[in-house]
Amino acid sequence: MRKLKRSARLVEMTQYLLARPHTLISLTAFADRYQSAKSSISEDLAIIKEVFEEEGIGQLHTLAGAAGGVKYIPTVRKEAALAVIREICRQLEQPERVLAGGYLYMTDMIGQPAIMSEVGRMFATAFAGREIDVIMTVETKGIPLAYATAMHLNLPVVIVRRDNKVTEGSAVSINYVSGSTKRIQTMSLARRALREQSRVLIIDDFLKAGGTVQGMIDLLAEFDATVAGVGVFVESGEVGAEERLFHDYVSLARLTHVDLKTKQTTVVPGNYFDD
Amino acid sequence: MRKLKRSARLVEMTQYLLARPHTLISLTAFADRYQSAKSSISEDLAIIKEVFEEEGIGQLHTLAGAAGGVKYIPTVRKEAALAVIREICRQLEQPERVLAGGYLYMTDMIGQPAIMSEVGRMFATAFAGREIDVIMTVETKGIPLAYATAMHLNLPVVIVRRDNKVTEGSAVSINYVSGSTKRIQTMSLARRALREQSRVLIIDDFLKAGGTVQGMIDLLAEFDATVAGVGVFVESGEVGAEERLFHDYVSLARLTHVDLKTKQTTVVPGNYFDD
Repeated sequence: MRKLKRSARLVEMTQYLLARPHTLISLTAFADRYQSAKSSISEDLAIIKEVFEEEGIGQLHTLAGAAGGVKYIPTVRKEAALAVIREICRQLEQPERVLAGGYLYMTDMIGQPAIMSEVGRMFATAFAGREIDVIMTVETKGIPLAYATAMHLNLPVVIVRRDNKVTEGSAVSINYVSGSTKRIQTMSLARRALREQSRVLIIDDFLKAGGTVQGMIDLLAEFDATVAGVGVFVESGEVGAEERLFHDYVSLARLTHVDLKTKQTTVVPGNYFDD
Repeated sequence: MRKLKRSARLVEMTQYLLARPHTLISLTAFADRYQSAKSSISEDLAIIKEVFEEEGIGQLHTLAGAAGGVKYIPTVRKEAALAVIREICRQLEQPERVLAGGYLYMTDMIGQPAIMSEVGRMFATAFAGREIDVIMTVETKGIPLAYATAMHLNLPVVIVRRDNKVTEGSAVSINYVSGSTKRIQTMSLARRALREQSRVLIIDDFLKAGGTVQGMIDLLAEFDATVAGVGVFVESGEVGAEERLFHDYVSLARLTHVDLKTKQTTVVPGNYFDD
């Protein structure tokens, strides 16, 4: 790269860091990239760090020493996240979203990458401190949420299939009981899709009794993998805690009430916002 | 927002623009946000524009006049894209990817958000000039590609299902013949998922004879919607042009040869890189 003035370098470094979350970049790499002294780079990083942290964009972790460098950790402040979730709750309460069986139509919302990116940033904030190797979800609506989270955490995604496709090679299948329909269903994952011993963050769109997530947890056992966390976009508050198959999860919104006759629903912020 | 020094403002503006591709932001909005004169904002934008364009990050379109403002258009240079695609081709040629039926295992690559983001930027560059309302794909492997593209183009995504889920409401289903297996399959889309008259960019992971994409095109007709473009990650060059159901598409890579016995494959850059 040609040598840049400080102002231009700040612009370039900002975009470079934003495109590489959770990635350690050494001062030497920056000094080489910008043909500048490490002392100048350090001054630039101090400016970027202050803006990122003051404006709630994320944290810039600086590691001192010979192996030192900087790592951008995308985060969102609780109050900013709450404002976003309140607007999402308001939209989810629209009566035309109520479907047969007490489900909510959320596909249009999940279809908006900008909203998914904000939601992914919340999950990335909630799970930033955990040791995670990979994010897992089950097709179809969990996929956009899983990728948005993975983008911010710099992690790969594995998608559990509801069938066993020819294009995946040999696969492990398990049966599980869908908590809401009480029917036996199948999910499968290609043998080569997940390394043994992986620490896995499970992300899904909707949590009722939890049969689907429990299915993924059972599937992990087949790979000698472990659960590093569970994040769901919306949980149904109509399921009592005693009915739920597991209890350690982060929810961003909670559907507390559905009246199928009047199509009135109540959606409130999830347990991520509990104090 | 508190008033920032120029250096800090450049950092904040850079992240603000990067998070809002294909969105017109007025000079007035920036001047209010940063409590600064429009002349200072214009100077900042000139610096950002120069860095974005010189370093191949994207374009900053400036619109003059009372309704004026600035719009960030993410792009990638052909030579930078070619370097990325060459590395992808190299990885796709690994013999262990060859599956029964001449398919390639690509799920691990599609599972990497950073690669998807680069691929999405290529599609966003290829289709930046078209009038598009929405991006469509079919589950499952097309979804990460569609979202990565949608993120850069600031467009919503609709996902065509291979079944008809209870959580979607009333849906339109069509039958199509999968070009490779010659079997009749079904795809469906919720009636409310797509507005009539929409201009739709179709994105998919793999194109063989084109039955799946043709199915999506037929589905669009049911919604009085039109095709604004077709983008595929990998096309199979083993299908002759005369066999292919349609011809106007952008491919990023082309699988030109598969030897099932030796598991040797050849993958080359796709027609996006043709002159």
